[in-house]
Amino acid sequence: MSHPQPLLCVGSLAFDDLEMPSGTFENVVGGAATYSSLAASLLTSRVNLVGVVGEDFDPATLSKLSSRGVDLEGVEHAKGKTFRWRGRYAADLMTRETLDTQLNVFADFQPKIPASYKRTPYVLLGNIHPSLQTDVVGQVDKPKLVAADTMNFWISGQPGPLAEMLKKIDLLIINDEEARELSGIQNLTKAARDILKRGPSRLIIKRGEFGALLFDAGGAFFVPAYPLEEVRDPTGAGDSFAGGFMGYVARTDDASPAGLRRAMFYASALGSFCVEDIGTRRLLEVDSRALAERIASFVRLVDYGGGASLQLG
Amino acid sequence: MSHPQPLLCVGSLAFDDLEMPSGTFENVVGGAATYSSLAASLLTSRVNLVGVVGEDFDPATLSKLSSRGVDLEGVEHAKGKTFRWRGRYAADLMTRETLDTQLNVFADFQPKIPASYKRTPYVLLGNIHPSLQTDVVGQVDKPKLVAADTMNFWISGQPGPLAEMLKKIDLLIINDEEARELSGIQNLTKAARDILKRGPSRLIIKRGEFGALLFDAGGAFFVPAYPLEEVRDPTGAGDSFAGGFMGYVARTDDASPAGLRRAMFYASALGSFCVEDIGTRRLLEVDSRALAERIASFVRLVDYGGGASLQLG
Repeated sequence: MSHPQPLLCVGSLAFDDLEMPSGTFENVVGGAATYSSLAASLLTSRVNLVGVVGEDFDPATLSKLSSRGVDLEGVEHAKGKTFRWRGRYAADLMTRETLDTQLNVFADFQPKIPASYKRTPYVLLGNIHPSLQTDVVGQVDKPKLVAADTMNFWISGQPGPLAEMLKKIDLLIINDEEARELSGIQNLTKAARDILKRGPSRLIIKRGEFGALLFDAGGAFFVPAYPLEEVRDPTGAGDSFAGGFMGYVARTDDASPAGLRRAMFYASALGSFCVEDIGTRRLLEVDSRALAERIASFVRLVDYGGGASLQLG
Repeated sequence: MSHPQPLLCVGSLAFDDLEMPSGTFENVVGGAATYSSLAASLLTSRVNLVGVVGEDFDPATLSKLSSRGVDLEGVEHAKGKTFRWRGRYAADLMTRETLDTQLNVFADFQPKIPASYKRTPYVLLGNIHPSLQTDVVGQVDKPKLVAADTMNFWISGQPGPLAEMLKKIDLLIINDEEARELSGIQNLTKAARDILKRGPSRLIIKRGEFGALLFDAGGAFFVPAYPLEEVRDPTGAGDSFAGGFMGYVARTDDASPAGLRRAMFYASALGSFCVEDIGTRRLLEVDSRALAERIASFVRLVDYGGGASLQLG
């Protein structure tokens, strides 16, 4: 058995105001690093969190993170207000529009990795300015696997810093539209091959309710999204996916192609929990038993008896 | 080893005029039963085809079908012209519009099952009037598994005959929009549960490039679409999927839950071949070696080491 390793999560902690078909929910604790670290904390014994909060951030939320094994030494407390995002979802929850973004203390966020975090072997860089992501990689000592998220805003607005960042990471985790914009290629398989030439040796393309693809030296690997009967709030699903993925890799201390394929199931499982309730509610409820049950359901969803059973007699 | 069984395919043979981003292709041999029987013929040793062609149908095409093990005794030759469909695809091939439909000899199509076909144990009913589908079921002696396709046109226009048909079949194969329209339910998992109460004990929901779901007594099972680098023509992909599915079931003579799960891979494989070239071109090229290679690629796409490997230590 491998020994569970810590995971470093860097990114936003936020308040979200969510206008959902089911009602409006304000002051919902969110942010990529919140979702990712909560998801990862279900899997590995320690998550080192680096982010910034304002004076208005809820101490109770920080306590909850701490009680789940999230180390808060790297969470900076700045004067001013916490990052706030307001969005409105369409009736089918498939699209959303940003109504307001107030960066607040996040505007000047310069991630500082505490000395006690510098040897963290697994790193998840949430969606922040690519130059800051590159800077974080420089602050960590010989990590085993560095994963990063990004978004269209940086792809179109900061192509130079983004290209530099891509050379420093091992795994890029983006969605299908971002993969198309980054590569300029519509076909995802071709887009993946293009992106893998730019630095990262692994790429995950998330497709929301349509599952996710991993591309690496072993070729392509697909994991479906779990077919849920109710989706309440997609906010944070991608971050929970990434946190579940890296949490599993850190727990198993296994970044091999086979290990990453198994991690895709934990990623999809954590993403599926996230959307079952508003904000982080469901992630805070889930325990290891619920996770094992969800993984077992996933196995039923994809189990066909193995490759040998498919050979024609 | 089980003995390969014949498959009965009932449905349209047609000429398609395809306005693709890559050019316009006219007089392309198509029709649901053409695609389904060609796909199935790669798998099982005999496909019994029931359909109708006009005086303008190409004898060479019928010879090709025949040489692939498709029995043509059930293909009626009627006076007049063959069914013709003209469609235009969007640049990304994701949507298409019908420009013209000429039913011609298909307008009066009344499937007559030849005596030599009546004992065919596996039946695939292509998308025709649901009353005709019901009528075909009555003409076959104790089939082991009857599958049917349908479309929005019948769901909205012929709900009574459609409801009757659903009670006579074992498996409905439709796409996601059809499942939503038939059930009146947006969520596919809930929609599936509703549809399974209406007659068929199994349901397949096709989602094009996003894969397909099988629902049965064993729960839900998912198979991805193969991530192709080039898609040239989606016409007939769903019919090739259904033909590949039922062809595998007939070949293995196995309609068990495990057998149907394996069949989903052959369905998706045949659908993936179909879209690689215009019309039936690619299906006519594919041999058992190419099929085995595609299945092996599918295994790599979904292979994660089995359920036991996902348990947390």
